[in-house]
Amino acid sequence: MKRKVFYLSDSTGLTAENLGKSLLTQFPNIQFESVTRPFVDTPEKAQKIAVEINQVSQTSSDRPIVIDTIVNFEVSDIISSADCFYIDIFSTFLSPLEKELKVKSAHHVGHMPIFKEDSRLVDKNYMQRIDAVHFALANDDGMQLNRYADADIILIGVSRTGKTPSSVYLGMQYGIKAANYPLIPDDLEINKLPSALKDHQKKLFGLTIRPARLSEIRNERKPNSNYAALRTCVDEIRQAETLYRQYRVPYIDTTQLSVEEISARMLQRAGIERRVKSL
Amino acid sequence: MKRKVFYLSDSTGLTAENLGKSLLTQFPNIQFESVTRPFVDTPEKAQKIAVEINQVSQTSSDRPIVIDTIVNFEVSDIISSADCFYIDIFSTFLSPLEKELKVKSAHHVGHMPIFKEDSRLVDKNYMQRIDAVHFALANDDGMQLNRYADADIILIGVSRTGKTPSSVYLGMQYGIKAANYPLIPDDLEINKLPSALKDHQKKLFGLTIRPARLSEIRNERKPNSNYAALRTCVDEIRQAETLYRQYRVPYIDTTQLSVEEISARMLQRAGIERRVKSL
Repeated sequence: MKRKVFYLSDSTGLTAENLGKSLLTQFPNIQFESVTRPFVDTPEKAQKIAVEINQVSQTSSDRPIVIDTIVNFEVSDIISSADCFYIDIFSTFLSPLEKELKVKSAHHVGHMPIFKEDSRLVDKNYMQRIDAVHFALANDDGMQLNRYADADIILIGVSRTGKTPSSVYLGMQYGIKAANYPLIPDDLEINKLPSALKDHQKKLFGLTIRPARLSEIRNERKPNSNYAALRTCVDEIRQAETLYRQYRVPYIDTTQLSVEEISARMLQRAGIERRVKSL
Repeated sequence: MKRKVFYLSDSTGLTAENLGKSLLTQFPNIQFESVTRPFVDTPEKAQKIAVEINQVSQTSSDRPIVIDTIVNFEVSDIISSADCFYIDIFSTFLSPLEKELKVKSAHHVGHMPIFKEDSRLVDKNYMQRIDAVHFALANDDGMQLNRYADADIILIGVSRTGKTPSSVYLGMQYGIKAANYPLIPDDLEINKLPSALKDHQKKLFGLTIRPARLSEIRNERKPNSNYAALRTCVDEIRQAETLYRQYRVPYIDTTQLSVEEISARMLQRAGIERRVKSL
């Protein structure tokens, strides 16, 4: 039987989820089943969830695990009184922080900090992210070669190595303007950097992937095509990696990585400063 | 003087950052300055950062705050011995969890769970997210009206209300296929749902925003244009909201919300099940 996990938050629930995942993946032999309940910001909503938690507890062999980032103690107290194993981020860390900082916390509902503090910084962060996402879309798949001068980074790679999601994520999370350019077979056969990229060599970052994995991914798109054939993938990847080495383009193997990991590693390797300040 | 904060992680650092932001925004009167150091996964890297932390401590009036999601104790022990106020997520919660679950944790470096566990689930999650991001791009700005049948949700709204970033985020985070359709003045003046949307009324979700804020955002794009004029924004928003009410399209005011919050709220309001399982 799977162990039930509740992620509770008075905001989106993303922080509770991420933290919970990091903790629970340390128990690979236990099967978990999670639900996220965002925007739990009133005692009434908390009461309903407490009832739900107690029901799970009564009908399962084990009480559920609750991971909670609710700031308002009036709300989180209702949750903590339910029958569960309770991980409460705020009550755990807020008091020690208050002591260290020698002030009481505001202790209100935590909106995403992008809309807090200095409203000009907020606006700047917001515009940076939105502009960067729009940039990624407009410069996806080599669509607007003339705007490479404005790019912070240009991702290159053969089809289905993860260029598009990575470009978008770089914009969304870090406010980085990422263009991407697909290396098509015509590009690869000449063994030279495509002419559109020549003036921007320092901005290039290569993506690669294990050919067997690439073939799987391409087969989902176009089953049994020449495009998806292992042979094709082996050839394209070999040619792309040769190109990267020849032009000293840094590159990353995306086979085992999530979009989040690809993006964070690229930023670190390329030494690019994020444009969105975190606090 | 700003209080220095280090977010340390053996992976991307996103969990440490999100958690830290939630905690530190509870102290609105203190100015923080944060740096994120991802992929701290060897004692050597930890040693370098410990030196950096000690330097900050010696040159500031207050020791830095360190928020750490490093799983490997050999690595995190080096950090904790530096002169800092230390918030260690793993050592705080892992032991109580081990007791509750009655097993020892694997306690290894925590990759994003998307690449753990059942590899078929992993693949499915990965493909869902990537496909959904590609879908959002292909169906941005009313580009492919014929694919609305495949959409999970269709965001509508006047220009610059946040449709595009929200569509992309829904794909990236939740694997939801979101198309979006811009309500242009021609659409608004007829006081009817644009014909392209008629067959998909149940999938529609409206975005709105305070006219003054919309005017600010549009002015960043096209300063002093009729498009950005407050008068134009007031009219367009009034017409769009009338349309939403007339056709009972649920809608959300994005003025004070981050892309993360907009997306989470829309999913909740529309009752759409996320396609990417979290664990």
